[in-house]
Amino acid sequence: MKIVVDGFGGDNAPGEIVEGAILAVQKRKDIEVVLTGKADVLNKLINGRSERISVVDAQDVITNDDQPTLAIRQKKDSSLVRAFDLLKENEDVVGLVSAGSTGAILTGAIFKIGRIKGISRPALCPVLPTVVDRPVMVCDSGANVDCKSENLLHFAIMASAYYSIISGEKQPRVALLNNGAEEHKGNELTKTTYALLKESPVNFVGNVEARELMSGDVDVIVADGFAGNVLLKTLEGTAKGMSVLIKKEANKNLFSKIGALFMGKFKGLKQKMDINKYGGAPFLGCKKIVLKTHGSANRENVKNTILQVATLHENKLNQKIEKLVEEISSKVGDEND
Amino acid sequence: MKIVVDGFGGDNAPGEIVEGAILAVQKRKDIEVVLTGKADVLNKLINGRSERISVVDAQDVITNDDQPTLAIRQKKDSSLVRAFDLLKENEDVVGLVSAGSTGAILTGAIFKIGRIKGISRPALCPVLPTVVDRPVMVCDSGANVDCKSENLLHFAIMASAYYSIISGEKQPRVALLNNGAEEHKGNELTKTTYALLKESPVNFVGNVEARELMSGDVDVIVADGFAGNVLLKTLEGTAKGMSVLIKKEANKNLFSKIGALFMGKFKGLKQKMDINKYGGAPFLGCKKIVLKTHGSANRENVKNTILQVATLHENKLNQKIEKLVEEISSKVGDEND
Repeated sequence: MKIVVDGFGGDNAPGEIVEGAILAVQKRKDIEVVLTGKADVLNKLINGRSERISVVDAQDVITNDDQPTLAIRQKKDSSLVRAFDLLKENEDVVGLVSAGSTGAILTGAIFKIGRIKGISRPALCPVLPTVVDRPVMVCDSGANVDCKSENLLHFAIMASAYYSIISGEKQPRVALLNNGAEEHKGNELTKTTYALLKESPVNFVGNVEARELMSGDVDVIVADGFAGNVLLKTLEGTAKGMSVLIKKEANKNLFSKIGALFMGKFKGLKQKMDINKYGGAPFLGCKKIVLKTHGSANRENVKNTILQVATLHENKLNQKIEKLVEEISSKVGDEND
Repeated sequence: MKIVVDGFGGDNAPGEIVEGAILAVQKRKDIEVVLTGKADVLNKLINGRSERISVVDAQDVITNDDQPTLAIRQKKDSSLVRAFDLLKENEDVVGLVSAGSTGAILTGAIFKIGRIKGISRPALCPVLPTVVDRPVMVCDSGANVDCKSENLLHFAIMASAYYSIISGEKQPRVALLNNGAEEHKGNELTKTTYALLKESPVNFVGNVEARELMSGDVDVIVADGFAGNVLLKTLEGTAKGMSVLIKKEANKNLFSKIGALFMGKFKGLKQKMDINKYGGAPFLGCKKIVLKTHGSANRENVKNTILQVATLHENKLNQKIEKLVEEISSKVGDEND
């Protein structure tokens, strides 16, 4: 199967992107990667190392400074827009990977590829670490900053299907991010969403407070994109802050320095708290699979994200989402706006 | 000055509350504490150790399971309602401390004590740790889950005055919690709030993403109570989660065990990440000083919170807030609803 990869998106493009693509095709012989971006640069980096990597030229690049909607409309020769064109126009291209601007990828996904029937808003769904051997997802984590409860119902359905595929768990536990565990808690949005989720086909286990994020007690945390974004970035910020404090602590005196050496500088911890280790975060709800990997993604992250596209395609993620949406559409009507 | 303390609020009441009160009056000779709650129990615990601690009997207790508004209205003989009555009726009682239900304290503060003229909504404003020697505040962190931009403007003003008092910083850097740093970013609420803050008398430094929470680059983070609550609890949850992972890491093998011993089990880190170490979080915007300390507060936390009331009273927190509100009232009108 063919997967298109934005060769010039992200801080480490194009070098790490190319290396990630090479690692991915080495790992799975049934994968072909199409890289978009400046052809001369990409071909030089590939240097004939794989026949299953091809290049489509694009001279322009979309950056985080670009206004997403304008960029997708106007930068027709950018690596990201070319990648979306390839995804749209070729049936055998099953998915797209980019480490570029989140806003631009979302805009491209909606306007170039379109939404699954019945889904009002695609949502970003990253996988986060817990203290047990079972990840947790937050959906939406930033694609939609103003949401209605129907949007959150769709996030729950999509993330539940996604979680099933990557974990094998048939009935993932879906919880609603709220400021208290009790049913009556919350703002207007979460109160109406609670009622919808109770009646939905997902395995809804009630409200969850953000302090239980890493407990492993829930599998999918449903949130509006603003709150989900605050959660995701607070997790990142706290992990970063604590790492700095640990380093300071470790350098305090000779004993602690020796201690830190013995503990191997917490490599295991760092690995566990790496929110990129699971590959990318999908924009759930697009007609084709679109995965965003972190702006600072390295080759390993890029490889994992490409392989993740293959897994989601093989496991028919979108067909599963469609089926669930059909199930609820008779109950809540088609909220597609 | 007299400070009233809810003797039966919180997980460690009444024992740790009484000990905290004793520590506080030992620390400052100009403080008297009035404890509310079951008089026989409290007097036994005090055991005549201080003449500057008195008891007012209250046989009932408000718990987290109580619906706040009903509890404040109906449980007239509870330790919290009695405490609010004392605060309301006695001019020489300058403030209140409780480790009880946040919702009930907020309700009591609004209905028993009332708001400062011009302030639409009191807000909860805890102090959080950073990687530098300078704390950061989040206002509102959960008192108001549905907010208008005028509410957030008031939060900014109140928290700015509060920060000045506890840090000595004349122009604290106030930032708006958002999903991106750029001015055009955000949901409807943050976009309109951004415009208001730009014109306000606070030292507004723009948007801040939650990942910068612990950087020490901003002093006050303004947020609606839902997002602020997600931030606060994600910080708590991540710190807790990382501590668990650190412990697991430390127990992995003999080397790491020795290492952890050398590092003194991260006592310094634990202390730094303790969100309760600064004492309590005030409900800013009440006519009198009301401080909530953590449900699991120990004697040290209770002592610090009582002393904090004294500091805020001496430094005329409420008069400063009133003055700032007057300054803006000509610009945005009296939004008191």
